[in-house]
Amino acid sequence: MAKTTEFQWSAEEMAVAKLAFSKAYRREIDTLVRVVRDRASSLNTMDDIWQLHDFLSARRHELDGKYDDRESALIFVFSSLVKEGWLSLDELAGLDPEKVSKISALTRIL
Amino acid sequence: MAKTTEFQWSAEEMAVAKLAFSKAYRREIDTLVRVVRDRASSLNTMDDIWQLHDFLSARRHELDGKYDDRESALIFVFSSLVKEGWLSLDELAGLDPEKVSKISALTRIL
Repeated sequence: MAKTTEFQWSAEEMAVAKLAFSKAYRREIDTLVRVVRDRASSLNTMDDIWQLHDFLSARRHELDGKYDDRESALIFVFSSLVKEGWLSLDELAGLDPEKVSKISALTRIL
Repeated sequence: MAKTTEFQWSAEEMAVAKLAFSKAYRREIDTLVRVVRDRASSLNTMDDIWQLHDFLSARRHELDGKYDDRESALIFVFSSLVKEGWLSLDELAGLDPEKVSKISALTRIL
């Protein structure tokens, strides 16, 4: 089995990957937008505001670099996205089955 | 004229100061809450979210320590609050006129 970071990605696979990537990204951002709006609507005190700030700092730290679209990172990125529920394995249909199998296996050990 | 940091504050003056202080604080926080809610309601992209985060970082940096209620700081704190429009000089009625005059003078040079 090829090493995860050594997979070759065909143009067709990259198209599938890009679409899956942007779907997951959009879902995660939409959810974050909803959460921030909800939290903002119940703000009242300075502490509430700084708690929102702390929350955004943590989310930014987490999201910075998460959506890494370099080929060498894709298997790991997709594993995280599937594990976190932003993407289903079905949405990776069209990728080489060996990659999907690796992604699936990683979701169980990450 | 006494140095700004050497003013003595009577119990009556401290009561006036505390009330003025809490009014200004409440106004500034209420305004910030409104601004954050408005910005949150028009969030859409990750960039929007991080711009809100940057905005909160800047406001937090600015507000940390601004509401310093040590006697030695009060003249300066009130000058800033009046200059920024969170407090009117009228609301400091009850303080020694020399203090109000100093606060007023500082609003013009700060």
